[in-house]
Amino acid sequence: MSNNTNIVFESYPMIGGDGSNSYTKNSYLQRAGANAVKAIIDDVISEKLDVEKKNSSSKSAFRIADLGCSVGPNTFIAMQNIIDAVQQKYQSQGFASHMPEFQVFFNDHTSNDFNTLFASLPPERPYFATGVPGSFHGRLFPDFSLDFVHSSFALQWLSKVPEELLSKNSAAWNKGRVHYASAPDEVAQAYTVQFAKDITTFLEGRAKELVVGGLMVLNMPGIPNGNPHSSSVTGLSFDILGHCLVDMAKEGLISEVQVDSFNVPIYVASPKEMTQLVERNGCFSIERMEITQPKARDDDLNSQAFTMHLRAGMEGIISKHFGTEIIDELCDRCCKKHEEFIGLLESKCNEGNQLFIVLKRI
Amino acid sequence: MSNNTNIVFESYPMIGGDGSNSYTKNSYLQRAGANAVKAIIDDVISEKLDVEKKNSSSKSAFRIADLGCSVGPNTFIAMQNIIDAVQQKYQSQGFASHMPEFQVFFNDHTSNDFNTLFASLPPERPYFATGVPGSFHGRLFPDFSLDFVHSSFALQWLSKVPEELLSKNSAAWNKGRVHYASAPDEVAQAYTVQFAKDITTFLEGRAKELVVGGLMVLNMPGIPNGNPHSSSVTGLSFDILGHCLVDMAKEGLISEVQVDSFNVPIYVASPKEMTQLVERNGCFSIERMEITQPKARDDDLNSQAFTMHLRAGMEGIISKHFGTEIIDELCDRCCKKHEEFIGLLESKCNEGNQLFIVLKRI
Repeated sequence: MSNNTNIVFESYPMIGGDGSNSYTKNSYLQRAGANAVKAIIDDVISEKLDVEKKNSSSKSAFRIADLGCSVGPNTFIAMQNIIDAVQQKYQSQGFASHMPEFQVFFNDHTSNDFNTLFASLPPERPYFATGVPGSFHGRLFPDFSLDFVHSSFALQWLSKVPEELLSKNSAAWNKGRVHYASAPDEVAQAYTVQFAKDITTFLEGRAKELVVGGLMVLNMPGIPNGNPHSSSVTGLSFDILGHCLVDMAKEGLISEVQVDSFNVPIYVASPKEMTQLVERNGCFSIERMEITQPKARDDDLNSQAFTMHLRAGMEGIISKHFGTEIIDELCDRCCKKHEEFIGLLESKCNEGNQLFIVLKRI
Repeated sequence: MSNNTNIVFESYPMIGGDGSNSYTKNSYLQRAGANAVKAIIDDVISEKLDVEKKNSSSKSAFRIADLGCSVGPNTFIAMQNIIDAVQQKYQSQGFASHMPEFQVFFNDHTSNDFNTLFASLPPERPYFATGVPGSFHGRLFPDFSLDFVHSSFALQWLSKVPEELLSKNSAAWNKGRVHYASAPDEVAQAYTVQFAKDITTFLEGRAKELVVGGLMVLNMPGIPNGNPHSSSVTGLSFDILGHCLVDMAKEGLISEVQVDSFNVPIYVASPKEMTQLVERNGCFSIERMEITQPKARDDDLNSQAFTMHLRAGMEGIISKHFGTEIIDELCDRCCKKHEEFIGLLESKCNEGNQLFIVLKRI
């Protein structure tokens, strides 16, 4: 809509297509995360979804949006799971004969590869599929037009790098690092403030778009209350990336200025801060807010797998800043560096590192 | 939806991207056609749209679908025109304070270049934009979920070439031609039957998707009642294409078998046959059904422009059948052949060659 389109949100698309480095082929960690919460989503829909109200108030389709859907296949699995659970709920409540049609809105940045997404849609899907280009930090849908919002591993992306990080005169200048996890407090604080702004606009938008009684399920990297930023698996991963970039700068392969001006716009939130942001918004009840621990595959701590995963998610943003020519070398170094960190990562993987939230529009 | 996705509809995407041969840059004839009916669409919305009913029955957004939208920019112009007219109607009826939000569903085949479409969306658009991949010969939207359907220069595409044309033993075997316009009656009859089947499923789908009172505006190539098929501008254009392909086969550049098995799946309907199909469906009242004559630009009869236009629309389907390597040579020949036909084409351009239809869901 015109009131949002003046704002330019940064976009960091995953690698499109279905090649060996694509997000499609390298998003199993996100899939493991999504699987970990499938049973909880089933429970939530079973317990919290008010099908009687939906049924009496409207003959319209049940509309679901997946925000930050990327190119699949995870989004298709998640949407199918949700629809299965909603259908089950209708059946168990005696509304089988009033089963609604389903319409799924796949959303991601305009630069997302929607052509690949559309070509990959399951042929036997039980829903009408649509794509919605644009940032979820702005408005995407008409008022009260969604029954269910889902977002998996997308809300951790900030709408932009906090500006203070880029000024040499700022206390938050992030020299020699690419993230806040092991940085001084001023850097972390700048990230925290940006995250709060982004979640605030996100919740404002969704509060308008969801029907009263509608559910919103959010799944993202998380950190237990009170744990230091430096202890998150996500933070450690970006420490590895930062070390490698600094090494490359030292060897003159890239410039120090380039490294100093590069920061990964990803934030790992705690339940406490998300709770505060939701309460401040005031339009949602918190139905679930918990740190979960996804059951990882055996090779999740494999350095090669780590590197492929990092590349699928980060190649776009790294290439944009440093050029595509450094990617192979950087990935080789990240793979080796990961081996040094493996003990530390292993210990962190046993802590909860995923934040799972269910909100209801009140 | 699962009941449609088993059926494979042929798709013939326009050239994507925004290069010199793209549909984006070579669709001004379609734009001229759309402009010719803008004033009529304004009138239709002003006279026929029931905003009072919409306003009292639902607080939901005003939902518009453009079926066969291709990649823009024509679709953006058409959607803006419709929204302007709807807003004008709300204002003139004293409902300005109840102006709905608008949601536009851009539909085309899955193979359409939605990435280009999304990247080209007007930044200041007064609507929420979504893309819907799939054939309008099947279902695309939930029941009663659209207020307005628009389709410009898309319904002339058949879902497939009639099968009888491809059998040597059939009376409709279309040897040495690529279209029905100058072919024996059996060929034309096979096209007519296929068109009737396609429009029947199209109307069945839209009858389910449009709200009662919803409007559908269809704009497509047309031929006055009673005129022979061979007299349409569209038919003449494919005669030119056919002559050039036959010449190339004679010179051994392509095989005769290839030409015999190639047929352009485009049909030019008369008001009379469309009226019969709509009446047989029974879910729509005919608000307008007329042959119009678009005001062509001065260079519309320019052979170079004709060739660029033909290429933008037909390169996909020709390449798929003959290979991309013949395209440049074929286009050169079509350009020269067009010069021979220019007198005949000029005479036909003075007759109405566009069919404009407004239906209302009853």
